[in-house]
Amino acid sequence: MSIRPDLVTFGEAMIRLSPPSFHRLEQATTLDVHVGGSELNAAVAAARLGLRTSFITRLTRNPLGRLVENRAREHGIDTTQIAWTADDRIGTYYVEFGASPRANSVIYDRSDSAIARIQPKEIDWNQALDGAKFFYTSGITPALSASAAEATLEAVDKAREADALVCVDLNYRARLWTQSEARKVMTTIAKKTDILFATEEDTLRVFGIQESSYEAVVRRLAETFDLRVAAITLRENPSVWRNQWTAIAYETDTDTIHRAPTYDIEVVDRVGSGDSFVGGFLYGYLAEGASKGVRYGVGMSALKQTIPGDLCWATVEEVERVLDGGGLRIVR
Amino acid sequence: MSIRPDLVTFGEAMIRLSPPSFHRLEQATTLDVHVGGSELNAAVAAARLGLRTSFITRLTRNPLGRLVENRAREHGIDTTQIAWTADDRIGTYYVEFGASPRANSVIYDRSDSAIARIQPKEIDWNQALDGAKFFYTSGITPALSASAAEATLEAVDKAREADALVCVDLNYRARLWTQSEARKVMTTIAKKTDILFATEEDTLRVFGIQESSYEAVVRRLAETFDLRVAAITLRENPSVWRNQWTAIAYETDTDTIHRAPTYDIEVVDRVGSGDSFVGGFLYGYLAEGASKGVRYGVGMSALKQTIPGDLCWATVEEVERVLDGGGLRIVR
Amino acid sequence: MSIRPDLVTFGEAMIRLSPPSFHRLEQATTLDVHVGGSELNAAVAAARLGLRTSFITRLTRNPLGRLVENRAREHGIDTTQIAWTADDRIGTYYVEFGASPRANSVIYDRSDSAIARIQPKEIDWNQALDGAKFFYTSGITPALSASAAEATLEAVDKAREADALVCVDLNYRARLWTQSEARKVMTTIAKKTDILFATEEDTLRVFGIQESSYEAVVRRLAETFDLRVAAITLRENPSVWRNQWTAIAYETDTDTIHRAPTYDIEVVDRVGSGDSFVGGFLYGYLAEGASKGVRYGVGMSALKQTIPGDLCWATVEEVERVLDGGGLRIVR
Amino acid sequence: MSIRPDLVTFGEAMIRLSPPSFHRLEQATTLDVHVGGSELNAAVAAARLGLRTSFITRLTRNPLGRLVENRAREHGIDTTQIAWTADDRIGTYYVEFGASPRANSVIYDRSDSAIARIQPKEIDWNQALDGAKFFYTSGITPALSASAAEATLEAVDKAREADALVCVDLNYRARLWTQSEARKVMTTIAKKTDILFATEEDTLRVFGIQESSYEAVVRRLAETFDLRVAAITLRENPSVWRNQWTAIAYETDTDTIHRAPTYDIEVVDRVGSGDSFVGGFLYGYLAEGASKGVRYGVGMSALKQTIPGDLCWATVEEVERVLDGGGLRIVR
Amino acid sequence: MSIRPDLVTFGEAMIRLSPPSFHRLEQATTLDVHVGGSELNAAVAAARLGLRTSFITRLTRNPLGRLVENRAREHGIDTTQIAWTADDRIGTYYVEFGASPRANSVIYDRSDSAIARIQPKEIDWNQALDGAKFFYTSGITPALSASAAEATLEAVDKAREADALVCVDLNYRARLWTQSEARKVMTTIAKKTDILFATEEDTLRVFGIQESSYEAVVRRLAETFDLRVAAITLRENPSVWRNQWTAIAYETDTDTIHRAPTYDIEVVDRVGSGDSFVGGFLYGYLAEGASKGVRYGVGMSALKQTIPGDLCWATVEEVERVLDGGGLRIVR
Amino acid sequence: MSIRPDLVTFGEAMIRLSPPSFHRLEQATTLDVHVGGSELNAAVAAARLGLRTSFITRLTRNPLGRLVENRAREHGIDTTQIAWTADDRIGTYYVEFGASPRANSVIYDRSDSAIARIQPKEIDWNQALDGAKFFYTSGITPALSASAAEATLEAVDKAREADALVCVDLNYRARLWTQSEARKVMTTIAKKTDILFATEEDTLRVFGIQESSYEAVVRRLAETFDLRVAAITLRENPSVWRNQWTAIAYETDTDTIHRAPTYDIEVVDRVGSGDSFVGGFLYGYLAEGASKGVRYGVGMSALKQTIPGDLCWATVEEVERVLDGGGLRIVR
Repeated sequence: MSIRPDLVTFGEAMIRLSPPSFHRLEQATTLDVHVGGSELNAAVAAARLGLRTSFITRLTRNPLGRLVENRAREHGIDTTQIAWTADDRIGTYYVEFGASPRANSVIYDRSDSAIARIQPKEIDWNQALDGAKFFYTSGITPALSASAAEATLEAVDKAREADALVCVDLNYRARLWTQSEARKVMTTIAKKTDILFATEEDTLRVFGIQESSYEAVVRRLAETFDLRVAAITLRENPSVWRNQWTAIAYETDTDTIHRAPTYDIEVVDRVGSGDSFVGGFLYGYLAEGASKGVRYGVGMSALKQTIPGDLCWATVEEVERVLDGGGLRIVR
Repeated sequence: MSIRPDLVTFGEAMIRLSPPSFHRLEQATTLDVHVGGSELNAAVAAARLGLRTSFITRLTRNPLGRLVENRAREHGIDTTQIAWTADDRIGTYYVEFGASPRANSVIYDRSDSAIARIQPKEIDWNQALDGAKFFYTSGITPALSASAAEATLEAVDKAREADALVCVDLNYRARLWTQSEARKVMTTIAKKTDILFATEEDTLRVFGIQESSYEAVVRRLAETFDLRVAAITLRENPSVWRNQWTAIAYETDTDTIHRAPTYDIEVVDRVGSGDSFVGGFLYGYLAEGASKGVRYGVGMSALKQTIPGDLCWATVEEVERVLDGGGLRIVR
Repeated sequence: MSIRPDLVTFGEAMIRLSPPSFHRLEQATTLDVHVGGSELNAAVAAARLGLRTSFITRLTRNPLGRLVENRAREHGIDTTQIAWTADDRIGTYYVEFGASPRANSVIYDRSDSAIARIQPKEIDWNQALDGAKFFYTSGITPALSASAAEATLEAVDKAREADALVCVDLNYRARLWTQSEARKVMTTIAKKTDILFATEEDTLRVFGIQESSYEAVVRRLAETFDLRVAAITLRENPSVWRNQWTAIAYETDTDTIHRAPTYDIEVVDRVGSGDSFVGGFLYGYLAEGASKGVRYGVGMSALKQTIPGDLCWATVEEVERVLDGGGLRIVR
Repeated sequence: MSIRPDLVTFGEAMIRLSPPSFHRLEQATTLDVHVGGSELNAAVAAARLGLRTSFITRLTRNPLGRLVENRAREHGIDTTQIAWTADDRIGTYYVEFGASPRANSVIYDRSDSAIARIQPKEIDWNQALDGAKFFYTSGITPALSASAAEATLEAVDKAREADALVCVDLNYRARLWTQSEARKVMTTIAKKTDILFATEEDTLRVFGIQESSYEAVVRRLAETFDLRVAAITLRENPSVWRNQWTAIAYETDTDTIHRAPTYDIEVVDRVGSGDSFVGGFLYGYLAEGASKGVRYGVGMSALKQTIPGDLCWATVEEVERVLDGGGLRIVR
Repeated sequence: MSIRPDLVTFGEAMIRLSPPSFHRLEQATTLDVHVGGSELNAAVAAARLGLRTSFITRLTRNPLGRLVENRAREHGIDTTQIAWTADDRIGTYYVEFGASPRANSVIYDRSDSAIARIQPKEIDWNQALDGAKFFYTSGITPALSASAAEATLEAVDKAREADALVCVDLNYRARLWTQSEARKVMTTIAKKTDILFATEEDTLRVFGIQESSYEAVVRRLAETFDLRVAAITLRENPSVWRNQWTAIAYETDTDTIHRAPTYDIEVVDRVGSGDSFVGGFLYGYLAEGASKGVRYGVGMSALKQTIPGDLCWATVEEVERVLDGGGLRIVR
Repeated sequence: MSIRPDLVTFGEAMIRLSPPSFHRLEQATTLDVHVGGSELNAAVAAARLGLRTSFITRLTRNPLGRLVENRAREHGIDTTQIAWTADDRIGTYYVEFGASPRANSVIYDRSDSAIARIQPKEIDWNQALDGAKFFYTSGITPALSASAAEATLEAVDKAREADALVCVDLNYRARLWTQSEARKVMTTIAKKTDILFATEEDTLRVFGIQESSYEAVVRRLAETFDLRVAAITLRENPSVWRNQWTAIAYETDTDTIHRAPTYDIEVVDRVGSGDSFVGGFLYGYLAEGASKGVRYGVGMSALKQTIPGDLCWATVEEVERVLDGGGLRIVR
């Protein structure tokens, strides 16, 4: 049975463990348990806004694997296309929340996870992508292993065959591969991409692209890879607990730079904000194009940063309240 | 036996449930339990500062009703005049704490509570008000139901008979009644009121009063309803976690606008700040009139916002330290 | 789109709030949040064992309503047939966990919930039941209100039309209706029922049936209502923390009493055990009839009692390990 | 103003700190905060059952002192007769909860507390005891210091003047004084006592009384000190988590041994059970004499052991349910 | 600088994560953090009883590696001989606490940990073992990897050279190697062992030794491998929360079976009990031979099972209290 | 056996109890447990940066005393020179965390602690100081009692004999002694001091030194007491949650004022920041003199304020990242 999803995302979801109340890991006697990963986070953001969404990964059939699936299903995500194995492990990662001048920090323990050991042809992409409007993955998935890179390329090709728009977030992870490794693979993928998400830093590190303005960066990305849309998120960090956040997107069709308001963020948990931008963008883009995309992307990801965990437990009404300048009085 | 209280307050106290650490309700696996309600909150503020205080409500005789009574007694409040019933329910409400740009939000589940179903003559007001200097209720109590409105009017009349000053906070709640319903009832009550507390917004919404300055608002209120004192609290919201807070009061006798310092508040929990202003005001007013009232009201309510829960667990020494500009070094 | 479920359940799911670590409600400063309700609990048990399961209820469109849906979806349950309303409320209930000689206790605050206010024809039963093998509800659903009783009868009739087996747990709740009210409605329903679940006490209270043995009770139930199967769960309470637990079922076809082993239970949380029995029974019954049903029902519900919350977070492998006498050594 | 209490109790209340979930103190990263002390515990038990109760102690005027007062007031206890000081400290004690074969353990840090430094004449006993029916203290209070012993004797004498029955629990604490010190003081006090509570061990350690049966012990106590009632509580410890509990009382008037049922207790927290026995006994005794006293004492103290903390958060209905053999099914 | 330890232990210590309050892993929103591993656990037991103890492992230089070292140092263990690496990972494992009929369960995620990748000659055994009286490792260490097996054999040989008694716990882990792999390596090690710890099951699984009595098992082990002492721990599991526990040891020198009392255990956390037996045994053995060894081993490990975590936070006084039949009254 | 430490510190370490999440003590139902005290805090900071460090105090041999020792050992501190007693108590203190305009506050309960009752000659200073490069104590230690003052002077003299640099933090505590008492003792000590740490306020209160600039203060201190180095930490408090922090040090040898960057601190827990400055300073000073000292002192103490508890769980790499302006992006 096909669910004919609006959006299919593909990548790793990990168990995330974080000490509460600004404790260091060395001090921890309890850890908060969340689930996260770029493609799951984006899927949740999209699903909560109303897109029919399927998340595809490979999981070990044990309580930790089930926990990942459960947390995806909780938001209404279709998980029927996930590949299961008796072997391997579920990746974990640890987050320490900081305070100026101590930055947040992340320790990954993700080697040899079930998804890192995926092989091409393990997923029935024809079934998984049937009817899909968007396929999304990030630069993390191909970085997990050589076979994961192959599987990612296979998925991208299948998505194009299925007439889904290919959407990719660069998401460079220096712990997983070198810049030159990333450049090679991501260039191949970017050429097959319709909508590319990035940050200025990643654009430089992965593609060596540096421009005099953010606007020039997105234009350059769109030209280089013949994209429909190139979007970058923009963060200013005056302190760990207070950031400014916005994004811009260049749309090739209309040759327009689309913008969203800049938000002052009181940061509860900034992990996953770029991913929530993706989910919000795709929701808006599907409805009315990149202009709405960038606004809903920024609204959704601004809310994300006020919520514990990688996932954005917000609603479309809340995004719209933020976008409408809803104010900071108590909502009763 | 009469306790001859300084202050009698009358209204609803609810079980308040809030997810810790900025979690959304949908994420909640535990909820913090507090007790709150405008008239209980004001009673606690006054009692902690030293006023003999009685809180009157109607409660269901079950663990939740007892919990409400216990939490009032914990602060030395007399609860012997509370009406008890085997029926009905205890109202509950849920608070989600936000971070910019996500505002705090409140969900009420208070319909058909024991106090909403109170009937006139259930309280022995002669006994309850014997010797009282102040009677306090808010615009929430008559909004709970038609019979609660009747009971509120009965209480106001009895308070006047007992020579207690009638003190009222407008506290408009759009979920409970319309502006026109509120205007009708609150106009009747305001005419019998000695000391009226409000915010600029509520003054506009309930009475349609709009003026060019805060000072004009309080003067206009005092004139319109022939008040002894009209006071409004003033909040600026540059962010969810940081507000500015003060109040002004117009005293008819002296034809004076009284002011208090404006405080920068690092907001832990702003729920109940207006109520703590009332409690602090009445304490100061009883001692030395509106000038001291507005200062102790602002000091008490500034402290409230730094303390979890609806209730202001502060002392008179702490209020005075704040009013004296005590500084932010560690108090050892 | 139809999901063609194996099992459709219909009833109320509530927010469940319980103080941790044997605290009384009056002492509570935090409450654990769970979601539960007979028909949701049964649905989760069945879904976790592998049945395609749909849960139908009526929910208020707010964070509490979404929380209920999320927690159902987390276990893979289809929630697309739920009716949503802007009005009404989500029922809540409170559990205090006891220790001998203090029994566990429950306080319900469920009046006027969204599901209690359901009207016939709000659910598209034709779509919801398309392909279903079982329809399940309990004696709680018709007890919620007159209109809920009508809607329950409508559902039962529709299930019969759709060739789903009608499965009912008596679940008498004295707080919701009198024994004579229950008898009237439940007799009507029982006559349309294929598989009836009960306890000896409820059989007496609702139907006035009293027999000399448990075996006689199930036979009598089956005869009286022309059932395929009548099953009762059997609990011995030597203490609050330690119970014995089993069940028997009479199958009309084979004129056989089916039994399961009796388990010594170290009770973590016994709420929902009867419901997990239902879910486990239906899973086993679908596979191999009442003999397997009663065994998997008892295995699943024995495990339930060792797990916090109303829901049985177990797997089919774990049930089989218990049924196979897997022993109490650490499973590594 | 006098509250004309039924019961006045006099002694120390401490902050109690205990690691959760069977942790050792050395492991503790959080401690649960309770308030307890023999005379406060007895006062709470009596107050919850309906006696008008006043608790008298001496407290330091700081947050810890206020915390003690708050927790007493929460149960409706009159605290207006407490003596306050700017000096000294609030005693603390630590509890570790064990599991067989590790017994529960307690560490006291109570030296030089405000109550230990009380002087005779600090309390206005005429006012405090006006109208009182019972005065209660334990062998702990005179053991705190020489001046506390003097103050205790003063209180006992004043109680007799006021026609209150003097009620005393032996409560020998080897950390506070030697057996010979205790014997000297407690013999003086016991001779002025009407109702004496003890255990078999303490009777031996303090008075050197040893008899062949529990019945002989209470008779001997009553004769020796010319008591109205002598009562002892009886505990069997087959394990840390499971005890048997009952009590007997000898009443001189009727020359009768009164008994209560023996309860199997699943022990959540046994601290304070003897004190709850006292509170329950006095409630029953006031109503109908020692027969009801011993039953309500045992019922109340059996419930106490199922509740975290020193205080018995039970109601008279719950005690009666236990005494009526209410069973262990869920109370709905 | 040498610390000239009494005991050197060598093996893996992992981060242990466990859901509180009997939650399943799938339900977990927080996990308790402990550190454990057979050789660390044994080291802690010995150190707490007073042996100078050094723990040797290989750790990744990150917060998780430091956490392991910290938790060892907390008990006074020397950690200066630990090998550190920038690579690899710290093993983790998950524990679910059960209740009858649900057994406790453990999930390991320990592949490719730093210690599994240790190479021979990474540890300076001459320095590490200088002056040592005992060297201890378990059958887990050589099972981690081929190189870990080599390193273990190297350590055993070095210990013999250093005149330390070689002490080994069989600890068969089926997830790490097959029985035949284990038999090959463990036979080699056992032949070089002085004191061997085991269970009846592991003796059968690893060496194929099966005898008619426990006594015969330890005699047979001692003969087969020419041991000084062979000891086995004995557990009866009538339920998950209540076990019986004891041990026996055969001492070749004296040709004697030494026994300890059997304890009824109320099980808080049984993980690590065998390891605490080792630590307690070695402490007693060093002082007065196997008779005292088996008693202190059983006393220490009985206490372990009442304490959360793998480590036995007990003292020698507490062990002696248990061995002296100290009773279950509150220790004040 | 001597450990030949780089640094020996001497003073009190207390159990620190603080309510979580900005609760007031009166509200507390749980308290977080930490261990702290100026000399322990400084020792931990130094040890974590790599100095061989010994902490000397006097502790009661009970779980609380062991807890103090454990928490010191956890960071690799040598505790073998601690004096143990069966008597006395472990000091405790309570911290309430505030929010503007409510300052943090501290309540001490430290009278008659084991260290306050130390006598000269209880510590074997020759052994303890053998090979030490620095001896550190603060103005708190001699303030604890007359005998503690004597013991402090003994230690200072012994340190000079042992050729350790004497390092002292003024740390005036008005609860422990008067300014004139402090001046007398601290003047004696300061004259024997090599490196003096202070704040501008304490310099004024203890020595009556007031100057027109911070630079003048440190020069004046160095001249007055013939110091090698005088250092003061500088805090600006624009709010409770946000401070600015830096320090300056005057070095006599080079006649230079050394400075460090000023950091904007998002304050999680500012207790112990001055002590972490000491630890960081001594680490830097030992390596490269006062210039590095003041920088590492400020870096370490800036990090301290972002970490819960008195102790600075940071690493030298993290300090260097802050000093290098490492930015506030997530460290992955």
